Amino acid sequence: MSIKSLEDLFLHTLKDLYFAEKHIVKALPKMIGKAGDAELKKLFETHLEETKGHVERLNKVFEKMGEKAVGEECPAIEGITEEAEELMKEIGDAATRDAAMAAAAQAVEHYEITRYGTLIAWARKLGHDDVVKLLADTLKEEENADAKLTKVAESTLNKKAA
Amino acid sequence: MSIKSLEDLFLHTLKDLYFAEKHIVKALPKMIGKAGDAELKKLFETHLEETKGHVERLNKVFEKMGEKAVGEECPAIEGITEEAEELMKEIGDAATRDAAMAAAAQAVEHYEITRYGTLIAWARKLGHDDVVKLLADTLKEEENADAKLTKVAESTLNKKAA
Repeated sequence: MSIKSLEDLFLHTLKDLYFAEKHIVKALPKMIGKAGDAELKKLFETHLEETKGHVERLNKVFEKMGEKAVGEECPAIEGITEEAEELMKEIGDAATRDAAMAAAAQAVEHYEITRYGTLIAWARKLGHDDVVKLLADTLKEEENADAKLTKVAESTLNKKAA
Repeated sequence: MSIKSLEDLFLHTLKDLYFAEKHIVKALPKMIGKAGDAELKKLFETHLEETKGHVERLNKVFEKMGEKAVGEECPAIEGITEEAEELMKEIGDAATRDAAMAAAAQAVEHYEITRYGTLIAWARKLGHDDVVKLLADTLKEEENADAKLTKVAESTLNKKAA
């Protein structure tokens, strides 16, 4: 029983998310390679650069807390990306695959959105006001990425696939 | 390559979510048993009943589509709940565990919210207008459950844990 307080839980969740962000940095190039629609590919490329920035921001959060930046295995993100990768193998049609990839990316975004939301609430309660802005800046980018995926899916991808 | 169209993908995702909802019906009683805060316990109990209703609604969706209601393994929900169960084992303090459980339940809700949102968009595009309301009713309940978890976490659980 290594977690004895909300402070420990906050740090644990930070490490979990650090692992997740690095995992996403590795997963996105595969999705970029498979995206058929130019707008979707561009979105993934932009989000890869943003995600590298999220890792950097988490490095700063660890630094401000006087903690070493280390990841802790995150079965949730592994499950979400495993499901996406298995699904891609089952789809031969490019338009259908694009619709599936946008949806899979939104599942990733939603996981990050809930985790950053939780971390921000805990940081405030614990008085870590100096890391709230870093976490909130990333949360905003995740929410924007999700909204852009909804837009491209509804305006283009789903139509092409239907 | 078993998925050849958006119709196939819709059905696949429906089966994935059917598996996920049944998985949650099994997971919630464990969380009810571990919840220390009375309001959190009550929320989990209410959501267990709702989740049983979501399984029933999905049964109706399959029926309307002339398909057999069967689940398909969903590594995403398995990963999300595995992470939650591993975390619970690491926490000795009841107030900290309650804060962690609320956050874990929100990760589950967010996964369902993104999946129902996607299914509704695809159902509309595919002309399955007769199942949209069923899916939208469940989506609304998932969003409400998430909002209630935020409220109890921010007003009570995080304070008790900090």
